[in-house]
Amino acid sequence: MKREHVRDLLQQVANGALDVGNALDALAFEPAESLAFATIDHHRALRQGFPEVIYGAGKTPEQICAIAERIAAHGDGLLVTRISAEAGESLRATFPDIEINTVARTAHLAGQQPPPAGSGTVAVITAGTSDLPVAEEAAVTLTALGNCVVRITDVGVAGIHRVLARRDELASAAVVIVIAGMDGALPSVVGGLVSAPVIAVPTSVGYGAAFQGVAPLLAMLNSCAAGVTVVNIDNGFGAAVAASRITHSRAS
Amino acid sequence: MKREHVRDLLQQVANGALDVGNALDALAFEPAESLAFATIDHHRALRQGFPEVIYGAGKTPEQICAIAERIAAHGDGLLVTRISAEAGESLRATFPDIEINTVARTAHLAGQQPPPAGSGTVAVITAGTSDLPVAEEAAVTLTALGNCVVRITDVGVAGIHRVLARRDELASAAVVIVIAGMDGALPSVVGGLVSAPVIAVPTSVGYGAAFQGVAPLLAMLNSCAAGVTVVNIDNGFGAAVAASRITHSRAS
Amino acid sequence: MKREHVRDLLQQVANGALDVGNALDALAFEPAESLAFATIDHHRALRQGFPEVIYGAGKTPEQICAIAERIAAHGDGLLVTRISAEAGESLRATFPDIEINTVARTAHLAGQQPPPAGSGTVAVITAGTSDLPVAEEAAVTLTALGNCVVRITDVGVAGIHRVLARRDELASAAVVIVIAGMDGALPSVVGGLVSAPVIAVPTSVGYGAAFQGVAPLLAMLNSCAAGVTVVNIDNGFGAAVAASRITHSRAS
Amino acid sequence: MKREHVRDLLQQVANGALDVGNALDALAFEPAESLAFATIDHHRALRQGFPEVIYGAGKTPEQICAIAERIAAHGDGLLVTRISAEAGESLRATFPDIEINTVARTAHLAGQQPPPAGSGTVAVITAGTSDLPVAEEAAVTLTALGNCVVRITDVGVAGIHRVLARRDELASAAVVIVIAGMDGALPSVVGGLVSAPVIAVPTSVGYGAAFQGVAPLLAMLNSCAAGVTVVNIDNGFGAAVAASRITHSRAS
Amino acid sequence: MKREHVRDLLQQVANGALDVGNALDALAFEPAESLAFATIDHHRALRQGFPEVIYGAGKTPEQICAIAERIAAHGDGLLVTRISAEAGESLRATFPDIEINTVARTAHLAGQQPPPAGSGTVAVITAGTSDLPVAEEAAVTLTALGNCVVRITDVGVAGIHRVLARRDELASAAVVIVIAGMDGALPSVVGGLVSAPVIAVPTSVGYGAAFQGVAPLLAMLNSCAAGVTVVNIDNGFGAAVAASRITHSRAS
Amino acid sequence: MKREHVRDLLQQVANGALDVGNALDALAFEPAESLAFATIDHHRALRQGFPEVIYGAGKTPEQICAIAERIAAHGDGLLVTRISAEAGESLRATFPDIEINTVARTAHLAGQQPPPAGSGTVAVITAGTSDLPVAEEAAVTLTALGNCVVRITDVGVAGIHRVLARRDELASAAVVIVIAGMDGALPSVVGGLVSAPVIAVPTSVGYGAAFQGVAPLLAMLNSCAAGVTVVNIDNGFGAAVAASRITHSRAS
Amino acid sequence: MKREHVRDLLQQVANGALDVGNALDALAFEPAESLAFATIDHHRALRQGFPEVIYGAGKTPEQICAIAERIAAHGDGLLVTRISAEAGESLRATFPDIEINTVARTAHLAGQQPPPAGSGTVAVITAGTSDLPVAEEAAVTLTALGNCVVRITDVGVAGIHRVLARRDELASAAVVIVIAGMDGALPSVVGGLVSAPVIAVPTSVGYGAAFQGVAPLLAMLNSCAAGVTVVNIDNGFGAAVAASRITHSRAS
Amino acid sequence: MKREHVRDLLQQVANGALDVGNALDALAFEPAESLAFATIDHHRALRQGFPEVIYGAGKTPEQICAIAERIAAHGDGLLVTRISAEAGESLRATFPDIEINTVARTAHLAGQQPPPAGSGTVAVITAGTSDLPVAEEAAVTLTALGNCVVRITDVGVAGIHRVLARRDELASAAVVIVIAGMDGALPSVVGGLVSAPVIAVPTSVGYGAAFQGVAPLLAMLNSCAAGVTVVNIDNGFGAAVAASRITHSRAS
Repeated sequence: MKREHVRDLLQQVANGALDVGNALDALAFEPAESLAFATIDHHRALRQGFPEVIYGAGKTPEQICAIAERIAAHGDGLLVTRISAEAGESLRATFPDIEINTVARTAHLAGQQPPPAGSGTVAVITAGTSDLPVAEEAAVTLTALGNCVVRITDVGVAGIHRVLARRDELASAAVVIVIAGMDGALPSVVGGLVSAPVIAVPTSVGYGAAFQGVAPLLAMLNSCAAGVTVVNIDNGFGAAVAASRITHSRAS
Repeated sequence: MKREHVRDLLQQVANGALDVGNALDALAFEPAESLAFATIDHHRALRQGFPEVIYGAGKTPEQICAIAERIAAHGDGLLVTRISAEAGESLRATFPDIEINTVARTAHLAGQQPPPAGSGTVAVITAGTSDLPVAEEAAVTLTALGNCVVRITDVGVAGIHRVLARRDELASAAVVIVIAGMDGALPSVVGGLVSAPVIAVPTSVGYGAAFQGVAPLLAMLNSCAAGVTVVNIDNGFGAAVAASRITHSRAS
Repeated sequence: MKREHVRDLLQQVANGALDVGNALDALAFEPAESLAFATIDHHRALRQGFPEVIYGAGKTPEQICAIAERIAAHGDGLLVTRISAEAGESLRATFPDIEINTVARTAHLAGQQPPPAGSGTVAVITAGTSDLPVAEEAAVTLTALGNCVVRITDVGVAGIHRVLARRDELASAAVVIVIAGMDGALPSVVGGLVSAPVIAVPTSVGYGAAFQGVAPLLAMLNSCAAGVTVVNIDNGFGAAVAASRITHSRAS
Repeated sequence: MKREHVRDLLQQVANGALDVGNALDALAFEPAESLAFATIDHHRALRQGFPEVIYGAGKTPEQICAIAERIAAHGDGLLVTRISAEAGESLRATFPDIEINTVARTAHLAGQQPPPAGSGTVAVITAGTSDLPVAEEAAVTLTALGNCVVRITDVGVAGIHRVLARRDELASAAVVIVIAGMDGALPSVVGGLVSAPVIAVPTSVGYGAAFQGVAPLLAMLNSCAAGVTVVNIDNGFGAAVAASRITHSRAS
Repeated sequence: MKREHVRDLLQQVANGALDVGNALDALAFEPAESLAFATIDHHRALRQGFPEVIYGAGKTPEQICAIAERIAAHGDGLLVTRISAEAGESLRATFPDIEINTVARTAHLAGQQPPPAGSGTVAVITAGTSDLPVAEEAAVTLTALGNCVVRITDVGVAGIHRVLARRDELASAAVVIVIAGMDGALPSVVGGLVSAPVIAVPTSVGYGAAFQGVAPLLAMLNSCAAGVTVVNIDNGFGAAVAASRITHSRAS
Repeated sequence: MKREHVRDLLQQVANGALDVGNALDALAFEPAESLAFATIDHHRALRQGFPEVIYGAGKTPEQICAIAERIAAHGDGLLVTRISAEAGESLRATFPDIEINTVARTAHLAGQQPPPAGSGTVAVITAGTSDLPVAEEAAVTLTALGNCVVRITDVGVAGIHRVLARRDELASAAVVIVIAGMDGALPSVVGGLVSAPVIAVPTSVGYGAAFQGVAPLLAMLNSCAAGVTVVNIDNGFGAAVAASRITHSRAS
Repeated sequence: MKREHVRDLLQQVANGALDVGNALDALAFEPAESLAFATIDHHRALRQGFPEVIYGAGKTPEQICAIAERIAAHGDGLLVTRISAEAGESLRATFPDIEINTVARTAHLAGQQPPPAGSGTVAVITAGTSDLPVAEEAAVTLTALGNCVVRITDVGVAGIHRVLARRDELASAAVVIVIAGMDGALPSVVGGLVSAPVIAVPTSVGYGAAFQGVAPLLAMLNSCAAGVTVVNIDNGFGAAVAASRITHSRAS
Repeated sequence: MKREHVRDLLQQVANGALDVGNALDALAFEPAESLAFATIDHHRALRQGFPEVIYGAGKTPEQICAIAERIAAHGDGLLVTRISAEAGESLRATFPDIEINTVARTAHLAGQQPPPAGSGTVAVITAGTSDLPVAEEAAVTLTALGNCVVRITDVGVAGIHRVLARRDELASAAVVIVIAGMDGALPSVVGGLVSAPVIAVPTSVGYGAAFQGVAPLLAMLNSCAAGVTVVNIDNGFGAAVAASRITHSRAS
């Protein structure tokens, strides 16, 4: 379309409807605009069917509902992360079909068309039960983005047999998201067991020298298994988007 | 092989050449070995044709050469990272065909069989020229692991047009590795431009409050572009392995 | 006034109404006072018409009201920052005309004479909507100090076209205040787009490895755009005063 | 030039020398280029007569000389910062007129046209003699960018009379750059004495709990004088560019 | 048993009830499973009579009660650490015999068989009265794990005679757990007085530069008494388990 | 007393009531006790008339009252720091004469004999009004320990004339306690104005990069005025005890 | 000896050669001395046959030799840690029988009597080959202190089968010292496999976000295996002494 | 004198030699100047006979010699700290009588008049022999400032009897400077033994989690002995000046 717009402009120059000076100004005047447009277009190409995402922390229930209504009016899907219980109830009042996940602190409203399907399943594996809210945030996000999810829970390395017992499930995943607090050791073990991409998520689980997730963050950045990548502390959402970038590029 | 070993053992039990007690002892004697077998086998499946990797830092030229000779004797390829100039020369004396990259500080000796080809190209993009050693380490590793590489250099965000000018190359990459020191801002811009997986590598380029790479590391972990993953400071090798995990799982 | 006071004293010495010894004691008794005089005078030159500023955090509503009444009694304007809702209400009870901004957490009471006008507009640009309280604190302060403000909101670098689309507004500003949390990348992009002074404000928006604003603070201190300066985390007030120092020195 | 190039192209379309399709391809082939054009043009507007700057740290003498020759060939001026003694000598061999400042670790080659003059003088004030290299880097950069510089040296706050004795010089400056290590206290005192913009530069002078400049950096970010802005540790260059952004926007 | 299982399998191969291929598959199919089994067995050997431990922080009273009931149904003992007052009351409603220690924030339910007795007493020594909650957590855990405990309280090094007065008790202990906040100096003194193993626990007691236990943690890691080991901040439980590892290996 | 005990023992040996072997055992049995004795004695010498101090944070009102009653029963004075409002009221119920200072968060009960008087006055000087709670804690402690106190408030260095105006009071003090948050610059200025001992107290006043007092702590440790010593963040009590150590050793 | 001294003194009192007053003074004069005596005696009991240890870092070869000669003159053994190559050669010149270990950077000279034997073997296990210097320091120290050592090398968790293959050796150890850099994950796995005491040693192996050993230190302090204790970074010596405290108390 | 100057001025006004306007200007014109003068005067009063101090780090031998010659020309004494061996030799060439202390890294040249004597001795006590350079810097500075020094060396708390044995020397000191690295525990023990002022100096002795002196710095700031003050890491000079401020104010 942008190309069409420039073609029109050139056509007008060719047939004398527009002089060179004005054409030059027109081109000079809107590179950003046209860039913006192009980017939006591209963005849309990316997003076709994906839900809009709202980061719920620090927004009032009223603000979240107002944004949600504007999105839903276009028939798009909606995913709210870090949502408070109160905001969740406000949303449900407006959208009876919305799925509230209190563990993941998410609200998900499906769009009129389903998101494009990712290629392969994504395994979400946690070291301890306290890591579950982050794992659920990842799982809900993955599902909302069109991915199949396998959950493997509470397989910390202090009981190494527990993770080894799940090796088959891990080996068959297209991407593995490994979530751990405290010593952050699980991604190193998993990274050695599978050849698929491994995304590590440190959690703020722990106390004292865990420093709200700094200990597992550093451990994961220094994983002795090569090729493990890391996202921010407690960022289940980011890990899911990263995994979905992989499964959807696999699909293309 | 190990599987064959167990099969032989069972065969001997089946035909009476070995009694149950001794067979049990043989198996008991090496349960880990048999576990190791499985893992090695799997590992080999992964590694079929991939070079062995030696982390050169803190190893003497003699140690590196000794390991290299043992690997080369099996016909396997070899990649040494963080190699000193002196160790590089020692290796070249033994292996005249070895490729020494002084910018990347790597030595690469191809194996008897080529590594399996990854699917799609990997773009390696840097914010500044000082990030080149890390970028070269990534590029050499990617090539050694069977990937096609596109290099995009010196496109920091302070001259935003420079990165925008390379948008087509970025958009066509299967994976993008973004390398930046100082403010670590480039992955956020790139992450917004492409839908492919983005792996960010902070570098120790900078001074003062860059804190040897902490500043870009934190910026990248907090990227406002969703789904950007991060590896350790200056870890071009790790980013390349992570990218290769993606391109090779795409290939399967 | 103080100058007048010293003049009076000297006058009395000149006309014999005061002897040298007593005059000396009077001056000796208040050498600091006289120094203070000079400084106050200069300060007053600076402050002519500017409001007094009260940092509201950690002060009780009663304390704030007491200070405000003393200031208002002299006809001076008043700006309270980091004010609680409760303190805001107390102030409104006494000063019905006071402007309370609940987003900026400020209260502003105009003085009897308007503040001197700064030269040129100040653009206040934010990466995300969560940065708004800091941006509003900056904007309210700028206005109270006699500046024209242009607000540009939610133009984070992950959607680079959004900031590019506002380039004209940025280019015409005398000073640009750039406010961002998380990766703190926006000042680097803006610093490359404009030649005017750029003041960066990191915010505590984010979680985990954002470390309450440390991540964007470090990124901004290491901005790859030369000549970007930085203020404390969430310090919209300080950025506004810094900008006002520039616009008012331009005006002189 | 680029504008001319587009005008030529449009002219050819207008007079039929180029058909619309080919013109479209030509433009499509270089949209980024044309974007770059705008930015470069703008940049040039900024830079008209300003020297190109090379960050010398981590570059070999050969690399620096090669870049310098390319720049000098266009008649542009050149400023190299953080240059080694060896690289300085190499440059002098090629450019006998280049000014090497061994304290500032800079090399400056004037361009064919002088840089546009900034409005007002910039005062560069240091707490101790050990801060001189940073001060000199700032002063050399300021001069290269067309500014008048006043140096005030060794006026740390432990001898408060020293800074008070220089109040007149400070009061008459358009911008004040305050450079201090250790306790970083000087900008707070200076910020209270002048109404002009104050840019603080922490230095890595000190030992132990100075943490290579972290102590003064934090002190400056928390200055009790409102409106003090800060740049990276030891970043005399950045402070000078920030000051020059102010003096040159004053000039416009 | 596992050994028996493999023996059975081999027996079947020997007598032709199972052919080699199927036996091979059976072995290949369950290495992890059988490993898991072995580990559990071993674990059980370790745990024979030891209570199950639940980390109470971040679990609801309902979750804790549900887990507790499942454990108690097997006749096993139960130790809950970091339990809230509310969860404690819920547990008491179900288990009237449970021992709630409000200082230690623990709940302990004895199992049907007593835990195996450790060899020797464990001294738990604190620098100040504020360290008592951590000391009590250690003492309760030690008792639950079958150890004799001696408590020595409030013998900080600023009154060095206090600790010297308790030298005999210290000298007769099999293991000494030393708990201190603030300067973390006590383990260095105790480590010089006794030849037994010394386990240091930093506490979050203190304020300001104590940084929630970082100060004593670092002091303890750098103890000038050789052979002092350290656990996480406030980790009385971990110190007790470490001590119990020693007393129970002494017993074997 | 203990001395008497040893004398008795020796007397018994001298008159044959105790043989040498038993006397040796008796002495050997209580070396720590006798050491304790010496230390207690010395301690008493130190403490003659000084109040006992209770650190109130983390103690219940009941605990504080119980300790207070035990101390008061001996006629000793009592100083409670960091006391809660609730605990203060409990104490007042028992001790109607106790002085509660709600700003300092202290409770002080004079003993039957006054504390020995320190030599010279102690100046307590603060940079801002928010530092007052720490200053009051210092002032109350100083008074309770027998010192004369001069308070100088709100003389931060951004208005340098304010501190200069109080130079005479500073110069006449035996010890100066300087309390400041944010940039922690005041001790450097004061340290240059007086030759008396200067004790700096960083406060947690400020936000963002003040890091709860780390910024002024580091600034003070790096004071450019030689011979400034520092205590923990917000530790008005510790500074007062340090000052009192000086004034009481001056007195001896 | 000291006991003898006191006995003499008492004897003199008993036979009237010394009066009570003078005896009292004599005892009062040297309580510390007598304490020192006790401590030295106890210390000696501890040390009977153990070598004296010299921390070699920061001492000149001359200083080390001087100390060594003084120790050897008493027939005691000697262990020097962190010794330079140069100091090692100096020692060998004087003591031809001294054992220099260049990997461990230790020198060991056996005493005239062997050290008392510890009970049970100590396993020293490392994650990577780069951890060997720390492991050797531990092993040499253990041997010098009379312990049997089993070395298990290069069994990092990224190849989990490697550590599992050594389970029997681990299970039979009285104490396990686990040495790892980077992610510090190995102690968590080992702690889950064995019931013996586990001492973790973080190493400074790694780069970037390993922060010279901080990453594994934090991971180990937060180990998900209960009862793992930790020593300082690279402190193989301290871990060995801690292990020896256990094996020698087992022996008693 | 200043008083005289003002008196003269007033006298001139009184007798008509100066009119009021000019007198007012004269007073307004030089408050800073006269302040500076006063401060210098005061400073001189302080400094009468004290040596000038040069911080030698980062200064060339030439620079140091030039400054030294200027000072010596006035007959003043000179103390250079942190001096290099090379600079020391240069100084000795010019000043044959200068005292070079290679352990303390100081050079001291006595002035024509001796410094005023401090009141009482200053004890300088170190935990280990590696702390000696810092202790010597303190001792040399103390002597140069006119103080008597007692050195107590190598009395770390792991052998608590060593410090107790020196109690008498500690008790008789007017000020105690306690120097320790690693765990920084010694000041807490000493602070409990003496009632005199205690100044703690953390040293950078140690490795790993000692973090170049951060561990003892934090321990000392959190000393459980009340009234211990702290100076910067390795700052023997600063501790000596602080002690000298006490002994010289005692003397007045």
